[in-house]
Amino acid sequence: MAGDKRRILIQLDGDKHASTFDRVVAIDAGVDELFTCQQVTPEDVAPLVHGAIFTRGVDDLKSTAIFVGGSDVSLGQKIYDTVRKTFFGPMRVSVMLDANGANTTAAAAVLSAGKHLDLSATQALVLGGTGPVGQRVARLLAGQGAKVKLASRSMDRASVAAKSINTFLQYDRITPVAVSSDAELVAALKEVDLVVAAGAAGAELLPESARKQASSLKVAIDLNAVPPAGIAGGDVMDKAKDRAGVITYGAIGVGGLKMKIHKASITKLFETNDLTLDAEEIYAIGKTLI
Amino acid sequence: MAGDKRRILIQLDGDKHASTFDRVVAIDAGVDELFTCQQVTPEDVAPLVHGAIFTRGVDDLKSTAIFVGGSDVSLGQKIYDTVRKTFFGPMRVSVMLDANGANTTAAAAVLSAGKHLDLSATQALVLGGTGPVGQRVARLLAGQGAKVKLASRSMDRASVAAKSINTFLQYDRITPVAVSSDAELVAALKEVDLVVAAGAAGAELLPESARKQASSLKVAIDLNAVPPAGIAGGDVMDKAKDRAGVITYGAIGVGGLKMKIHKASITKLFETNDLTLDAEEIYAIGKTLI
Amino acid sequence: MAGDKRRILIQLDGDKHASTFDRVVAIDAGVDELFTCQQVTPEDVAPLVHGAIFTRGVDDLKSTAIFVGGSDVSLGQKIYDTVRKTFFGPMRVSVMLDANGANTTAAAAVLSAGKHLDLSATQALVLGGTGPVGQRVARLLAGQGAKVKLASRSMDRASVAAKSINTFLQYDRITPVAVSSDAELVAALKEVDLVVAAGAAGAELLPESARKQASSLKVAIDLNAVPPAGIAGGDVMDKAKDRAGVITYGAIGVGGLKMKIHKASITKLFETNDLTLDAEEIYAIGKTLI
Repeated sequence: MAGDKRRILIQLDGDKHASTFDRVVAIDAGVDELFTCQQVTPEDVAPLVHGAIFTRGVDDLKSTAIFVGGSDVSLGQKIYDTVRKTFFGPMRVSVMLDANGANTTAAAAVLSAGKHLDLSATQALVLGGTGPVGQRVARLLAGQGAKVKLASRSMDRASVAAKSINTFLQYDRITPVAVSSDAELVAALKEVDLVVAAGAAGAELLPESARKQASSLKVAIDLNAVPPAGIAGGDVMDKAKDRAGVITYGAIGVGGLKMKIHKASITKLFETNDLTLDAEEIYAIGKTLI
Repeated sequence: MAGDKRRILIQLDGDKHASTFDRVVAIDAGVDELFTCQQVTPEDVAPLVHGAIFTRGVDDLKSTAIFVGGSDVSLGQKIYDTVRKTFFGPMRVSVMLDANGANTTAAAAVLSAGKHLDLSATQALVLGGTGPVGQRVARLLAGQGAKVKLASRSMDRASVAAKSINTFLQYDRITPVAVSSDAELVAALKEVDLVVAAGAAGAELLPESARKQASSLKVAIDLNAVPPAGIAGGDVMDKAKDRAGVITYGAIGVGGLKMKIHKASITKLFETNDLTLDAEEIYAIGKTLI
Repeated sequence: MAGDKRRILIQLDGDKHASTFDRVVAIDAGVDELFTCQQVTPEDVAPLVHGAIFTRGVDDLKSTAIFVGGSDVSLGQKIYDTVRKTFFGPMRVSVMLDANGANTTAAAAVLSAGKHLDLSATQALVLGGTGPVGQRVARLLAGQGAKVKLASRSMDRASVAAKSINTFLQYDRITPVAVSSDAELVAALKEVDLVVAAGAAGAELLPESARKQASSLKVAIDLNAVPPAGIAGGDVMDKAKDRAGVITYGAIGVGGLKMKIHKASITKLFETNDLTLDAEEIYAIGKTLI
């Protein structure tokens, strides 16, 4: 009987040591057996997937699933793509991509913003928008109908990222902006309802001076957990905290929802054998939780 | 109480990533805890075995076992031999060798043949007979009393393999044959009841032209799962299918029985602490399943 | 509810293959999920610890713990120190150091001696005293009030080790002695009640000739499991065996208690989230078992 099979999650991780974070969450999400594979490259993927799809009957394949993690999101994306290419016909298992927590973090950030804003009528600015989390935040916001300025210090990189997401979404809601000075930041913030800072740890993306001039700002979300803050004046623990009329979230304030989404997504993997959970699917799962 | 101990299987695998196939089968065979060790060399074996034999009381040692896998059968054989040499007196656990699935595949092939033939009165031809699966097929057939022609394109390699198996079995039922041309193939097929193709993927070992002249042939088993077929005219899904009077099996047709044998062998490991499961023992377990 | 969380043990091991010994003991001590990390360096530690402390609520952190093993005790010590430095405030889990079994072995040896001697009034000689087990035996004996001669063939190394332990304990009960000849051994044994041999495998630390002149000796403990014996005339199986008036223990004679201490310590890790189990704490746990 299908229901008798233990739930096996195959963790594919490119790092030297597979994430213990992802391992604990998998266990707490009800996985029975976790098969950890680390230092995984796209070339390693096929036999690892074959072991998943050739061992159990088709009716039992929903009790096996694959999680792609690791700190390198671009490598994770390649592994995830290779996993899906290795499937054929009904010979497939559900698979989730959450390298560096990028998908669950972006989903939690956008869902947090959506508690306070009508996203379809929102003008958003994503700072650190070319990074793995930033790109996913921009993509999810645009997917909800928001107009998004994707910001980077480099206009070239911002343009490449914006174009890539617009192509992916097949509509044109993302505009690249360069923000290498306070003046550019203030200009970028004009008419913006929502700002999300998704840069690398250690960089202050929105200083106090510029922030004070963001008169239209309603919601500010800072995904940086390590000092200094990505958005000056906030706190990592902020969770819908009113700071001078702006609802602010810090990384830990968003973290509780992120964790719920991560767990719910893992649990969901075992409902059928054909789920492919990337940013949008993980966002949709998150939406059912709030 | 002995019965309270969780069943631990220590998987020794020489590959970069231990086989997920073997991992899933172990779990589905009732293993409680799988300790996966990969990139294992014979030099690594002793302390890994010591951890198995020095941790539980002698009465509980049957709840720990070792599985030797990996894609390299010759390396697996060395690891298996080293494991057994590391045991002493009652300080031992059951151990199974199934690198690259060679033992379970060979056992399933010979058991499938035995459903249709009296093996003790069979004349068999094993194509790709010098490979790891081919040698085991020849060995098991000879062990059941069959006369076996072990075929290779190289007479030298066929002779070495045939001699090695005859020495192992202590009787002389295996004859080397060279089959580098259609004419040699036709000659080799003379009076043959059973042909098994066990070559590397991608090689057609028995073309249509030669096969048609095999007038005595009753059973044909092709263990190659990847096109082109090892035996022309068959299909990978064939399972005792009558093709012009010849009962044919393809790799997947044999695969169901192979999987049953694999699982039953793993389960068997935990009945006592002194089993050593190589080709013959695995064949004997398979015999109880059909 | 906290009680619902599965008990996760994160095994940090510097060897190529993490110890299967430690893995089996963890399972038999009631660990539900073992996360094995091998080839661990101190530089790898922080993210592995973050995964332990950032995934479960503070009330549930007691269901996650860390075990530091591996054959290199000095590396294990560095990993253990780094683990503890990575914790902050309530964000911590219990952690145990038992690289190469040094702490549990030393605890078992000293507890065995304490069954026959008032340790606070004991004069002890630790042969192989500069090794990882020897240093811990000396440290535990001194901690119980014994006067300890820490012996090595090199006076320099003995002095360094003795000074380091005296500094650690903040009193001055350990004296270095050089024992490179029989005469020096005999002199070192003068007025000694207890001798513990904790040298590397293969070295006879106390030959028959010197041992016979140890007229005050009451207890002899040899922790070497591999022939030749570290203390001539004993047997690896000795367990409080009277040999010419001297109560003797061999490595296996001490091993049963060592194993009990190891298991009890692992179990203890899951009672609160703030235990740090090094030699003294493990000794204290052992004391409750005898």
